[in-house]
Amino acid sequence: MKKTARDPEKTRTHILDAAFNEIYRKGFQGVSINDIVEKTSVTKGAFFHYFATKNDLGYAIVDEILSQMIMERWITPLTAYKNPVKGILNRFKKIIESTPDESVCFGCPLNNLIQEMAPVDPVFKDKLNSVMSLWIDENEKYLKKAQELGYLKKNVDTRQLAEFIVMVEEASFGVGKGIGSKKIHWSAYNSLRKYLMSLTS
Amino acid sequence: MKKTARDPEKTRTHILDAAFNEIYRKGFQGVSINDIVEKTSVTKGAFFHYFATKNDLGYAIVDEILSQMIMERWITPLTAYKNPVKGILNRFKKIIESTPDESVCFGCPLNNLIQEMAPVDPVFKDKLNSVMSLWIDENEKYLKKAQELGYLKKNVDTRQLAEFIVMVEEASFGVGKGIGSKKIHWSAYNSLRKYLMSLTS
Repeated sequence: MKKTARDPEKTRTHILDAAFNEIYRKGFQGVSINDIVEKTSVTKGAFFHYFATKNDLGYAIVDEILSQMIMERWITPLTAYKNPVKGILNRFKKIIESTPDESVCFGCPLNNLIQEMAPVDPVFKDKLNSVMSLWIDENEKYLKKAQELGYLKKNVDTRQLAEFIVMVEEASFGVGKGIGSKKIHWSAYNSLRKYLMSLTS
Repeated sequence: MKKTARDPEKTRTHILDAAFNEIYRKGFQGVSINDIVEKTSVTKGAFFHYFATKNDLGYAIVDEILSQMIMERWITPLTAYKNPVKGILNRFKKIIESTPDESVCFGCPLNNLIQEMAPVDPVFKDKLNSVMSLWIDENEKYLKKAQELGYLKKNVDTRQLAEFIVMVEEASFGVGKGIGSKKIHWSAYNSLRKYLMSLTS
């Protein structure tokens, strides 16, 4: 008789992480529940205890993993910078530097799910929209702060700029995936830097 | 006995167009050969006469439909403009204007296929890379021309700028698909216009 200590929260996270990795590489529709279960230490029965359907698992990935990832990678580190504009650029740089060459072909997990699932499932669409909006909203907060502190020209539309920054960051991963080279990430970074520099006071 | 006149080239185009529309809405992996055949006037047997596999059909969509679409939408009309920078901005504007609101949620057909198929199939990856490179190369040609004619500052790296323009255009459709609103397309356009204006002589 098995006596393994059980921690439902840990098991759930373990399944989510395994599913995230599989879906990141092969797409949501390209991965089956069996594929995911094989990558975990749980049985298929246990899987269904945590997630009633594959879609429920996908929604949890968006709500929990993706929104947390956006905050941790792009936003929370900005608190460390006196000048938020420099912070935004520096984060972009660090994220490019820390992206392994072999990951370039997999793109951005948020962008991947948007392109694949937003048009075919309204729940995915709403949830993905929330994460994308969170990313833009948080950038806007820091741009407003930059403007208040005099690091950004007063006439800059901070909402438009926040949208543009997120678009360029997403595009570097999206187009980089098509071109298959990190060169395109640096190209995006350099152009964004030039544009932001033209908007600083 | 059927006496319908047969035109293999027309039939092939008819299948490709039907498949393109289905795949644009539902994704390549989300559509079966049966789904595609149902949208055509041909039998499944006839389908296989033209395309041995679903992948062969997908490759033909990239090689023929997508590359032609990129040229017709974004590049060929640039010949009409004395100032290529204005031409690039004007095309972007016209493409946003002509995109029906209900299409925003389907994004860009090239971007969709890159995000879905480039990481899982090397032939797709190469072919999609070729179309993306064509788009960048052609933009670069017009930017060089703009530089020669004095419409763009001499110190602008035209390759980097061509990559940036394509990234912003793609991102407007990619992020627009996530946000579900054309507002994001106009945001991309306005920021790109400001950046390009800062680079003109």
